[in-house]
Amino acid sequence: MEFEYYNPTRLIFAAGALARLGEVASQHGKRALLVTGGGSVKRSGVYDRAVASLKLAGVSTVECSGVEPNPRITTVRRGAKIARNEGCDVIIALGGGSAMDAAKVMAAAFYYDGDPWDMIFHGQTVPYVPTRALPIITVPTLAATGSEMNMGAVISNEETKEKSFVQAQCLYPVVALVDPELTMSVPQDQTAYGICDIITHVTEGYFNGVAGTPIQDRFAEGVIITAMEYGLKALEDGNNLEARAQVQWASIVALNGWVNAGTNGGFPVHMIEHTLSAYHDITHGAGLAVVNPAWMRFAARHRPEKFVQFAERIFGLDAKNSIDLDCALEGIDRFEAFLKSIGCPTRLSELGIGDALLTEYAKETVRIIHDDKGLLPGQPPMSEADIVAVLRSAL
Amino acid sequence: MEFEYYNPTRLIFAAGALARLGEVASQHGKRALLVTGGGSVKRSGVYDRAVASLKLAGVSTVECSGVEPNPRITTVRRGAKIARNEGCDVIIALGGGSAMDAAKVMAAAFYYDGDPWDMIFHGQTVPYVPTRALPIITVPTLAATGSEMNMGAVISNEETKEKSFVQAQCLYPVVALVDPELTMSVPQDQTAYGICDIITHVTEGYFNGVAGTPIQDRFAEGVIITAMEYGLKALEDGNNLEARAQVQWASIVALNGWVNAGTNGGFPVHMIEHTLSAYHDITHGAGLAVVNPAWMRFAARHRPEKFVQFAERIFGLDAKNSIDLDCALEGIDRFEAFLKSIGCPTRLSELGIGDALLTEYAKETVRIIHDDKGLLPGQPPMSEADIVAVLRSAL
Repeated sequence: MEFEYYNPTRLIFAAGALARLGEVASQHGKRALLVTGGGSVKRSGVYDRAVASLKLAGVSTVECSGVEPNPRITTVRRGAKIARNEGCDVIIALGGGSAMDAAKVMAAAFYYDGDPWDMIFHGQTVPYVPTRALPIITVPTLAATGSEMNMGAVISNEETKEKSFVQAQCLYPVVALVDPELTMSVPQDQTAYGICDIITHVTEGYFNGVAGTPIQDRFAEGVIITAMEYGLKALEDGNNLEARAQVQWASIVALNGWVNAGTNGGFPVHMIEHTLSAYHDITHGAGLAVVNPAWMRFAARHRPEKFVQFAERIFGLDAKNSIDLDCALEGIDRFEAFLKSIGCPTRLSELGIGDALLTEYAKETVRIIHDDKGLLPGQPPMSEADIVAVLRSAL
Repeated sequence: MEFEYYNPTRLIFAAGALARLGEVASQHGKRALLVTGGGSVKRSGVYDRAVASLKLAGVSTVECSGVEPNPRITTVRRGAKIARNEGCDVIIALGGGSAMDAAKVMAAAFYYDGDPWDMIFHGQTVPYVPTRALPIITVPTLAATGSEMNMGAVISNEETKEKSFVQAQCLYPVVALVDPELTMSVPQDQTAYGICDIITHVTEGYFNGVAGTPIQDRFAEGVIITAMEYGLKALEDGNNLEARAQVQWASIVALNGWVNAGTNGGFPVHMIEHTLSAYHDITHGAGLAVVNPAWMRFAARHRPEKFVQFAERIFGLDAKNSIDLDCALEGIDRFEAFLKSIGCPTRLSELGIGDALLTEYAKETVRIIHDDKGLLPGQPPMSEADIVAVLRSAL
């Protein structure tokens, strides 16, 4: 276990915290670019409350709205331009993962004269790693991506049909202002996809990480169990603030480094799903619900012991021994059944995806990131044929 | 659950990381005050390796050695004076919790013209909260206090027989350089006390925190289970690097905020133990081993459900119901038996402490910190009589 960990984001977590946005933002700037998604923050009144709080604290605002569910590089370019033209000195994301991710890259693009797509890792390379960004404040309205407290962002290029990521220290938000009340209006389907996203962030490190990480394993299991338990409660009653808060907290710790530190694993399920949503513009969490169980069944044969541990600790199953594949597969079945029970798709057909392009998805996924043998990093590393087989098993 | 979390310390965790000290320190200064405890870092050769690495990177050093196991304010004054006289621009702690805590307060005292004791919370007040400190680098040689990655320090005043704490953002180390190889030479008794310290950091938040923290609970349980499992392995074979690394990692996450974030609890066991070690100069972890089980038996009657959860999840016991006090007490017995089995004292008499001053310890503990009703914060808040009763039960 060898690693570095660094995360300087200040987290403010409280129901009602939105009212503090102005006070918090005024410590970092005087003119804010407010980055939002569709109209939901407008309809819910959250947008107006945010602007009012900012105004009260002397922070003026200019908006960049309409960030897509899979945020596009064209939108990043547009936002960065607004921020420059309007002399913004702080960027506030008010929305889900897409608004947060777009805002992060806009914040770095503000200082970069080239094309912001240069910052996105694609085709095994990245022309420019950003080193400077406007201060970023995240105000998540959805519990899912964990983008509120990490240095990552995922951006799509609709022209080249690429969807990939950037990670850079300057992209850590200065503040994550997390108000679980804001998630109470999230509809059932998006709530369920968020729960799947949270759990998948954790399973990636859990199943793909190095051996010998007992604390990280326990942390991961704690997040999964809590996301399932309180996720069900949040789905039963969307106004259950306690449940919403626990799911929100799970989403933060799932991807702020606390669970994954030292696991040093690949994210093969995410990488495959990114390709699918680059081609089909599906919701990320829904795509993960299809890919993850299928990938697990493939990976369990290579590393049964970790899947046996998952089956035992998450679902209370009793394994015959530490490499009991039947038990491992039963755990995966239970996990898939959970996803189905909360309304997630578990087959590609439910996403309207057929078998026509499986080879192309595989090729594209490996093109974006691969190890020195040309394989998609993970446990085990995957060939294009492996990816095709996994996707075919989920048709 | 309402809280703020912020921890900007960069963690570098790797066997052999000591060799990187020079490279890391040179990013923060050119002349380092090296703060060390007794002679163990000299005898083990760690001191020479640190100095060599620093020299190679162009960082000159001046030493402040002889920090006591319960670090004294006189030593802090001495160290700050050396740092000033020698023009140090970075402070490196090479040792256990005492070296790290002393180094932190020296770093703040460097910029403070008053007496550094002003910074220590005592008598319900603190004359000066530090806002500026030299950059601090921690290189722990013992897995115990978790001081390597937090903003706290505990300092004793031998004149006034006080032992208390300071917490300030400027005390976060810029880097925690953690090399688990350095802990392989720690003797059995100190290893055991360290394990007890780690577990007690976690039980404080677990048992004294607010209700409704399922993720923090799972994280805490993960740390406890891992510290026990790998602690035993480290005690069986001190050269088991894997075991040493897991215990070291447990010590970091036990008190860097990851487990306690949002629990917002008091630290009554620590506060009581601090009084004992202010009067008797005992090892902190050994004092905790005596106080914690005694406190648990007291607190279990007030909050049985949390102790039942502890008994079930840590020791696999089966409770009759969620407030089954017998099960709760059985869990505490098992915990105490574990501490005994690794060589920790579990009675005051083993520490050479009798019943002569119980009332004074209680009075002094409450004097240092109390709520607006004059009680020691915790679940439940404790009167002086409660503290006396707990200590009497551990005679």
